[in-house]
Amino acid sequence: MKTTKLEKVTKEELLKKANKPAEDAMYMHPFYKGKIEVTPKSCIRDYNDFAIWYTPGVASVCKDINKNPEKVYEHTNKGNMVAVVSDGTRVLGLGDIGPEAGLPVMEGKGLLFKYLGGVDAFPICLNTKDPDEIIKTVMHLQPSFGGINLEDISQPKCFYILDELRKKMNIPVWHDDQQGTATVCLAGLINALKVVGKKIQDVKIVLFGAGAANIRIGSLYMKYGAKPGNLIYVDSKGMMHRGRTDLKDHKEKWHMCEITNEKQLTGHIEDALIGADVLSAASTPGPDVIRKEWVRKMNKDSIVFTTANPIPEMWPWDAKEAGARVVATGRSDFPNQVNNSLGFPGIFRGALDVRASTITDEMCVAAAEAMASHAEKIGLTEDFIMPAMDDPQVFVEEAIAVGLKAVEQGVARKPQTEAELRKSAEFMINRAIKDTKLRMEKGIIELPPKQRIEDRGEGLA
Amino acid sequence: MKTTKLEKVTKEELLKKANKPAEDAMYMHPFYKGKIEVTPKSCIRDYNDFAIWYTPGVASVCKDINKNPEKVYEHTNKGNMVAVVSDGTRVLGLGDIGPEAGLPVMEGKGLLFKYLGGVDAFPICLNTKDPDEIIKTVMHLQPSFGGINLEDISQPKCFYILDELRKKMNIPVWHDDQQGTATVCLAGLINALKVVGKKIQDVKIVLFGAGAANIRIGSLYMKYGAKPGNLIYVDSKGMMHRGRTDLKDHKEKWHMCEITNEKQLTGHIEDALIGADVLSAASTPGPDVIRKEWVRKMNKDSIVFTTANPIPEMWPWDAKEAGARVVATGRSDFPNQVNNSLGFPGIFRGALDVRASTITDEMCVAAAEAMASHAEKIGLTEDFIMPAMDDPQVFVEEAIAVGLKAVEQGVARKPQTEAELRKSAEFMINRAIKDTKLRMEKGIIELPPKQRIEDRGEGLA
Repeated sequence: MKTTKLEKVTKEELLKKANKPAEDAMYMHPFYKGKIEVTPKSCIRDYNDFAIWYTPGVASVCKDINKNPEKVYEHTNKGNMVAVVSDGTRVLGLGDIGPEAGLPVMEGKGLLFKYLGGVDAFPICLNTKDPDEIIKTVMHLQPSFGGINLEDISQPKCFYILDELRKKMNIPVWHDDQQGTATVCLAGLINALKVVGKKIQDVKIVLFGAGAANIRIGSLYMKYGAKPGNLIYVDSKGMMHRGRTDLKDHKEKWHMCEITNEKQLTGHIEDALIGADVLSAASTPGPDVIRKEWVRKMNKDSIVFTTANPIPEMWPWDAKEAGARVVATGRSDFPNQVNNSLGFPGIFRGALDVRASTITDEMCVAAAEAMASHAEKIGLTEDFIMPAMDDPQVFVEEAIAVGLKAVEQGVARKPQTEAELRKSAEFMINRAIKDTKLRMEKGIIELPPKQRIEDRGEGLA
Repeated sequence: MKTTKLEKVTKEELLKKANKPAEDAMYMHPFYKGKIEVTPKSCIRDYNDFAIWYTPGVASVCKDINKNPEKVYEHTNKGNMVAVVSDGTRVLGLGDIGPEAGLPVMEGKGLLFKYLGGVDAFPICLNTKDPDEIIKTVMHLQPSFGGINLEDISQPKCFYILDELRKKMNIPVWHDDQQGTATVCLAGLINALKVVGKKIQDVKIVLFGAGAANIRIGSLYMKYGAKPGNLIYVDSKGMMHRGRTDLKDHKEKWHMCEITNEKQLTGHIEDALIGADVLSAASTPGPDVIRKEWVRKMNKDSIVFTTANPIPEMWPWDAKEAGARVVATGRSDFPNQVNNSLGFPGIFRGALDVRASTITDEMCVAAAEAMASHAEKIGLTEDFIMPAMDDPQVFVEEAIAVGLKAVEQGVARKPQTEAELRKSAEFMINRAIKDTKLRMEKGIIELPPKQRIEDRGEGLA
């Protein structure tokens, strides 16, 4: 497991470092021409097997499903197949670059789903930006998929699309930029609070940025026990409260105006942070979007999450110097990475294994708790509140927690025990890792043309 | 390569034999829970590679595609990815069994696409039967795919859907039940005519059945040189001619009424066959749908294709006894199997490798000629007019012919030479076979629970 130390770098150094993967991406993508492929999952002992898998043999299982629709989960891969759906309107921090330009991200998501969670995920990039067309299209696709992962869709339509699809579909629909980010942030907050010895119901939390991610992050903090009145949202125009009638047309933001900020404070982020315990920022790339002098006015043992990419809203050492005790960012080269990839692979693993009809907020909380307690088992410190992505066990624990919660809540169509969930998750994840390793060893997946081991300063996996 | 001898069996024996794959299918499908999966195509040397394949590195290739849309073919797997699209309204011979029940067929098609042609193909089963909704949905999906394979969609809407999508999309759109079947039948006819020493422009051809397949089969025969006036279609009401006003509302059938049957003959199949050289039947399962006494009235050295499944319209030995010189069926256990799987994997291989914007009829003819001449190289006989599916070279030859024809016709966005096409096809097909073998050897794809080698009477591949 990787441990990360906090070393000061300049903005230029960090951007240069961040640029290395971008350079590698530019020659490695055309070498592979795609990051995921479709391969046989069933045996092909010889060509006669096609008479089983295709006509005439396949007709018997078609008839079986026609008689008993739930059998589609037995006879096909539907139950392990997730659609990664995007219209390309808000890809990474790049904005509306279109569905083709979003495809490399969605393929990458497919790679993560499989390698980290053993989940088959297929990129569906849509050539329409109309929310109702997106909804209709995704609903048309339902027979092929066991789950839907919405990705990189602009707000506010992403809320509407998610809500409608969750209402209308009987498979889990997930917007990773909302629920995924929220789940991982909650895991971080749970452990950060343990480190500083505070309780969620007591702390004052400032949410800086009112995008899709932070809206859902605040909701999940409340679901976990944060008092709505103790939350304060701050957007580009300042604190959100019932006087912010400019937000009346944005359903989700207006809801937050109504239920948060008990004291109806007004002013800007520097005012909001006075006496706050937690800053949860998901706003614009830094540094110095958040200033040291503002953090100094937070309560003792403050917690600062600055998750903007590629550069956090403030340097973690600045936050520390300003008195923050636990600092997390979105980067893997600083301690405490709050990273979506820690969530969705394990959460879908568990949801699919019990054939959950949805992923409830409670299942998200269960996943966050599992993530947090896995890190705690390893040993919490100020610089270790999040498990690492290269620890496959964290996904297993999440899958179990999510699956059991689904059973408890009655949304599991195929209830499983803890032991069954563990066995499945371990098998599926290990199989994916083993498969990739094997195919690389045997040259089915070739090494890239310029093998830059020396640049990377580390050996092969 | 498998050679097949003609041995008489009873209907009961044949149905029992045909039932074996169906029995195997029923326990083997739930064992594997799906026939295709999504796997990494690019290296994962360690977890740091995710910074290249996903954020932050991936942003550079996203921007590159945004600036230059054609680069999506360099940075993603779009160029090798085909959607297998069905609404489940005409699955095999089972009728409208719905999209979920059609999924095992579409997954099977994905298996064939990959193993035979090195093409990634993903099953898209749609929860709508409305032709315009199907068209719109497929168009929305365009960014993710390099080609569309329509499958098992009922007629007449399948004609409309295919035509509209071919007009509106800039990637190949193919309806395998139409063009695929037609291409393979044409290959068979080319070689059958060589065997009997007749010329396409001279022969009188009876097409029995006027479904989507036979409509397109007749069209392609004409494209290859058959004279429209020499064709006679026969449907359940008899020969088709300009007096068949009951067909006026069916655009494609009515077109055939207008251009075929020069002498405007009327009557039934037994009348149509008098003096015919070729019977090309794609109608209803037999035996004895076509009678010996009718075939006796055909010309000397007649050619009889009876392609209904699982039992051909007449027993091949009956056709032979009635004077037919070359007989083909849809079954692998009789000589001369006319099998769609011989076509689409190689045709799409070639079309994708040159980034064809469409698959023209001329490209179908080129594929049929390549298929035919490959069998001819092996050595034509009355019992060997079609290459075997377990001969990977046939798909390579088709890919080359299709790719070169696309270049010649100016529909190739990425022209390739014969040598380039050969290299790509051989590499992609061999890679798929090698990958599957490797994953089976190493237990990633396990053997099925009941390994019935003894039942199968043959060794493992």
